[in-house]
Amino acid sequence: MILLCNDDGFNAEGLRTLYRELSQDDDVIIVAPETEQSAMGHAITLNHPLKVRKVEEDGKFIGYAVNGTPADCVKLALNVLLDKPPHIVVSGINLGGNLGICALYSGTVSAATEAMIMGFPSIAVSLDTYENPDFNPAAKFTHKLTLQVLKMGLPEGVVLNVNVPPVPESEIAGVSITRQGKSRVIESFDRRVDPRNNTYYWMAGDMRFDEVEDGTDCVMVGKNYISVAPIHFDLTHHPSIEVIKGWNL
Amino acid sequence: MILLCNDDGFNAEGLRTLYRELSQDDDVIIVAPETEQSAMGHAITLNHPLKVRKVEEDGKFIGYAVNGTPADCVKLALNVLLDKPPHIVVSGINLGGNLGICALYSGTVSAATEAMIMGFPSIAVSLDTYENPDFNPAAKFTHKLTLQVLKMGLPEGVVLNVNVPPVPESEIAGVSITRQGKSRVIESFDRRVDPRNNTYYWMAGDMRFDEVEDGTDCVMVGKNYISVAPIHFDLTHHPSIEVIKGWNL
Repeated sequence: MILLCNDDGFNAEGLRTLYRELSQDDDVIIVAPETEQSAMGHAITLNHPLKVRKVEEDGKFIGYAVNGTPADCVKLALNVLLDKPPHIVVSGINLGGNLGICALYSGTVSAATEAMIMGFPSIAVSLDTYENPDFNPAAKFTHKLTLQVLKMGLPEGVVLNVNVPPVPESEIAGVSITRQGKSRVIESFDRRVDPRNNTYYWMAGDMRFDEVEDGTDCVMVGKNYISVAPIHFDLTHHPSIEVIKGWNL
Repeated sequence: MILLCNDDGFNAEGLRTLYRELSQDDDVIIVAPETEQSAMGHAITLNHPLKVRKVEEDGKFIGYAVNGTPADCVKLALNVLLDKPPHIVVSGINLGGNLGICALYSGTVSAATEAMIMGFPSIAVSLDTYENPDFNPAAKFTHKLTLQVLKMGLPEGVVLNVNVPPVPESEIAGVSITRQGKSRVIESFDRRVDPRNNTYYWMAGDMRFDEVEDGTDCVMVGKNYISVAPIHFDLTHHPSIEVIKGWNL
């Protein structure tokens, strides 16, 4: 059995395309946010109750919609909602890439991380476009990758962060096992004034990368490769431990 | 000049104690959320405008309150609000520890991370208690550490995640340069039924660690050491790259 979640919400096209694909040869249960939760990072809900809506379609139980974040959905699914543990947790397919440092902001990735923390193999999948998405090539690849992970297992503490270029299947250059790009994202804010003369700001503009290193996720997706980045969540920068020990604090 | 932020909100005691301490020998500007933003992870606000309130107290400008997340505050401060770049960004003092895997959920840490991504040295500071907090020992240590970071600099891409035990200064065992504990957190959900017979859930219970390894942040704080963990945000699990290359995807 596969647990499927996302951060674009229960009715998002990317999730539904992946549901249909993965349902071909396994049971799939969706536990996903009622509404879009993009850029929620690894938020969890402590201050309001989590409501759960059981969802049936055409008389068939397909999962639960939760008024929470992607991490909430996974916690609730694995602690409470599912009768038995899933074999794997798949998060996506997200509308928009989760490349480089953006993996930190990503609800899609955080759902997979939460599953890993709780001891389950997990994959996060994103399609690197916001326009005219065709989720089918990404869904097919995710299906193949899911079977491979079920067969091979994943190293302890590792999540696969998959990003698919927005091109027809015939134009995909291949699969690249990548590392996270480190370049910063260039943002801008739109300054506006409201009718009562208060200043406010919108986060604006594209998120642009200035990464150029070959083998990084953002560069390889730019070259039409499917990027598979093994990521983990030991944030310790081990080389710095000795440096700071020398500070005599 | 020091930029000070947090996730407990502009009027939180931990932030105000640190403001008074750091103001002794430097200019400090606060840019912090209007309201508590705990457990927001690295959320950023895309879907509503960020309102900014300039705050003066006793006729003195002390900073800006923003209706956003900790990461929003730092982005907005460094991109728009500050006239000149700060020398360092300090986030805290958080009410409650940010130890082990919880650093992932932490708005306090995410503010410091955001600053690091934007190229500024940064420190996140948390006091490991929710009851009867005395922020003074943590504020004094942060002052000392801030001066040290300003003098020595930090390795590229590194944030210091500081956690202080909730004991009087005389009982602090020392300073330990630590690594992130990896143990999972034990959570539970409270199941309830509303007056209209709908089921809902509250995240409940303490977050307990089952970490036992010496030298990890949670273990050392448990022994009354101040923990200083150098963390970074290259999430790549480099040893797995070769493993997954062998999968022939």
